[in-house]
Amino acid sequence: MKELVERIKKDGHVLSNGVLKVDSFITHQVDAELMERVGKRFAEVFADKGITKVVTIEASGIVPAVYAAQALKVPMIFARKAKSLTMSEELLTSSVYSFTKQVTSQISISKKFLTGEDKVLIIDDFLANGQAAKGLVELCQQAGAEVSGIGIIIEKSFQSGRALLEEMGLNIVSLARIASLENQRVEFLEEDA
Amino acid sequence: MKELVERIKKDGHVLSNGVLKVDSFITHQVDAELMERVGKRFAEVFADKGITKVVTIEASGIVPAVYAAQALKVPMIFARKAKSLTMSEELLTSSVYSFTKQVTSQISISKKFLTGEDKVLIIDDFLANGQAAKGLVELCQQAGAEVSGIGIIIEKSFQSGRALLEEMGLNIVSLARIASLENQRVEFLEEDA
Repeated sequence: MKELVERIKKDGHVLSNGVLKVDSFITHQVDAELMERVGKRFAEVFADKGITKVVTIEASGIVPAVYAAQALKVPMIFARKAKSLTMSEELLTSSVYSFTKQVTSQISISKKFLTGEDKVLIIDDFLANGQAAKGLVELCQQAGAEVSGIGIIIEKSFQSGRALLEEMGLNIVSLARIASLENQRVEFLEEDA
Repeated sequence: MKELVERIKKDGHVLSNGVLKVDSFITHQVDAELMERVGKRFAEVFADKGITKVVTIEASGIVPAVYAAQALKVPMIFARKAKSLTMSEELLTSSVYSFTKQVTSQISISKKFLTGEDKVLIIDDFLANGQAAKGLVELCQQAGAEVSGIGIIIEKSFQSGRALLEEMGLNIVSLARIASLENQRVEFLEEDA
């Protein structure tokens, strides 16, 4: 997605060889107009998959996921990282290790929101090691739902996430694919989806 | 907001005298179309306040906040509950106690995103004891920013949050105000904003 690639070039900050910071428009401060176009792009790409639910994980995935869900005219569900007192019923759960936060989280979705009839589009802001997406895929599998696609805003293609998910037979579309963050420079892999 | 009140009557679940569950359309599974109308309603109500930023806290506030920000044509910022490795710069921080989760969280916003020039609209899904909103107000005060309004989707008017915020001189608009959850019934205070 050309606009996204240009915005990363302009406003992304390379913190180290592994870390790209996009906190001025995606992960902390959010550019709603750009995120709506990102969500619509995901909806276009997966338009013929019969998607019934968009699933993401709190917190940075929520905005692109809700715009994708709106464009696809289906509900969005965000997996929770901590169990709340108001989530009393049965849960689908799995564990996700975050390399940036260095913690393992339990993630969960209420069973009543995903069934064997669902065709799910998983959305997230970043694909790095693939742990978050894998956790979401596991929640869908527990429900018997089909994962019909994974939409990622920024893929760090020099990390192992895509390979991990492709080995699971999943179809991944990333709107910006980063080949390298070396020498304080963002090198893109190709002009994307 | 009549549509919201009707939806709460239809799909809200009273778990106890203090807890209303709206996880099928706001806090876990999200109805994007309804949330867009909620966001637009906030934007209308605060249209003449010169808002420059919409601020919320992860995770359930993010969706109404981003739609309000989009309608107001300003950025949305969501305060984070846990410090991430990619948030290395100086932070505005405060503490928030959650009665539903029974934990105290540190919440933070990067200093660079809020300044003394900003006029902030704070958005959240629920107002109960007012702790989350108070924490967000404190972050704005640390930045020298003005809090120009607080927009709440569902106010539990039988709890102390509104009084706490009004004592701080703040202008609160809630789209649904709940007088009581006793006897498994949702009693509304009035037909709202």
